[in-house]
Amino acid sequence: VEADFVAWLQDQFRPTSLAPLGLMDDAAWIRDPRNASLIITTDMLCEGVHFEVDKTSWERIGRKSLAVNLSDLAAMAAEPQAAFLSLTWPHHYAEHDARRLVQGLLDLAREYNVILAGGDTNRWSGGVVINVTIFGHCSDRGPLTRTGAQVGDMILVTGPLGGSLLGHQFDFTPRVALASYLQREYELHAGMDISDGLSVDLDRLTRASRVGGCLQLDFIPITEAAQEMSRQTGHSALHHALSDGEDFELLLTAPPTEVDRMLGDDQVCQHVFPIGTIISGDGLWFATASGTRERLAIQGYLH
Amino acid sequence: VEADFVAWLQDQFRPTSLAPLGLMDDAAWIRDPRNASLIITTDMLCEGVHFEVDKTSWERIGRKSLAVNLSDLAAMAAEPQAAFLSLTWPHHYAEHDARRLVQGLLDLAREYNVILAGGDTNRWSGGVVINVTIFGHCSDRGPLTRTGAQVGDMILVTGPLGGSLLGHQFDFTPRVALASYLQREYELHAGMDISDGLSVDLDRLTRASRVGGCLQLDFIPITEAAQEMSRQTGHSALHHALSDGEDFELLLTAPPTEVDRMLGDDQVCQHVFPIGTIISGDGLWFATASGTRERLAIQGYLH
Repeated sequence: VEADFVAWLQDQFRPTSLAPLGLMDDAAWIRDPRNASLIITTDMLCEGVHFEVDKTSWERIGRKSLAVNLSDLAAMAAEPQAAFLSLTWPHHYAEHDARRLVQGLLDLAREYNVILAGGDTNRWSGGVVINVTIFGHCSDRGPLTRTGAQVGDMILVTGPLGGSLLGHQFDFTPRVALASYLQREYELHAGMDISDGLSVDLDRLTRASRVGGCLQLDFIPITEAAQEMSRQTGHSALHHALSDGEDFELLLTAPPTEVDRMLGDDQVCQHVFPIGTIISGDGLWFATASGTRERLAIQGYLH
Repeated sequence: VEADFVAWLQDQFRPTSLAPLGLMDDAAWIRDPRNASLIITTDMLCEGVHFEVDKTSWERIGRKSLAVNLSDLAAMAAEPQAAFLSLTWPHHYAEHDARRLVQGLLDLAREYNVILAGGDTNRWSGGVVINVTIFGHCSDRGPLTRTGAQVGDMILVTGPLGGSLLGHQFDFTPRVALASYLQREYELHAGMDISDGLSVDLDRLTRASRVGGCLQLDFIPITEAAQEMSRQTGHSALHHALSDGEDFELLLTAPPTEVDRMLGDDQVCQHVFPIGTIISGDGLWFATASGTRERLAIQGYLH
């Protein structure tokens, strides 16, 4: 959908009767005495846009429909509790395959101790549409947001990036436990998950926080899949790490002293990759070998 | 989707980590200390199934996508708080029309003091798909459910039925305030909204409560639209009142003394139509002129 419409729609996501409302893109934190810690997130996946049924098993498609929502909760350091599934299933596909899809969702739900609490089903002559809404709870600190990055913070990612198209987009691990642990044990300033590519999402985070970011490109962890993509496309593996979408790793900022502590913490050190720093001003930059900064081209998957 | 799949899916709607879970079809009540009164409901509407874009304005389609969820909350005597919208919009439709759809939703949200808290948008080459998830709160009594009907209860509906296809399916009033008022001021035993037709939905309610129901067919309030449908189809207007879907009136059961009080209450008497009684045994029946009971044919819209 065009950026204009999305911007307009986001302008509608305003409290009319309740305040304050913490808004985080496709998730919301409704602060209300009756549900002080409630976080809700929703994502719709469509055949031909988010998955191709001839390239991916039904179980993996179902898994992904929950996993993207779990990743949204992880990005807020929230713990998932229950999910709702709306499924519109084509007349031309077997009911048996719908069960396989739901089974893939249920298997992941069990791993994350999430219940499937309800749903809605329809049948039509169009493609498969899956909407999952999930709710969970943030800690007493409130949710991690993309607005809290501070000048001097280090920028972290929780795993290697790039080439998700080759399979990771279905098999990724939503970083729920890691995010909860980090928020409990460390001072995190900002967070989001990388769904549209590192450069696009870091640009969003720094804009939301009214700061800039400077990357140490050599420090960006790169997947084997990004290397493989590089061989296929002729772009560098770094390019794929910066611009491929659907990594579903977390992008975090925290003070350097906290990052030092994380790197000495056996529980998490293998998931802590410092890749740059938050700077004053705006925009994304990268550090050159000669010690100067250059503007980073922002490329990625824009819905 | 076939009944088999739906039954299987509903079997999955079980608590795996939390108990007890009150389950009401496409809505759930998650009893947890952190959100004691939380009720969540979700509904997906698809082009060509739930609406035809050449027959209905975008505003009315958007209105309906929220209204069906409000009706689900009303069926539980819950008060809505916030909604999430997932919208997948065809490449071949103008963005302008997506705004009109959302505006229709927002206008109804304002009337019901509901905020649009977040959402997700996609674009594809298929038809329009709208998923709305809404959450709200039940009273300290807990939600009204379809399991509580007791032998001797009167069966009520909150308005005339039938012929919704002629327009009411888009323009209906979700009975949120009425349901809250009735649950606060009266002893209600069971409730649901009529989405698939009176006979189908009353059959569900009585099955869920392990009782039977006997209707006084003469007492069933019938819309002008059902009369109009009758002229078009040759079926009786009563047939349409019994079997047309999407009335979105409430179907309630309450003790006769309570119903008497309601009928003397100026606030609600115009919305209280006693149409029968809950009986022991099972199945749906109707009272004949000679004072006997006959089995009622159950006809309606089965998804």
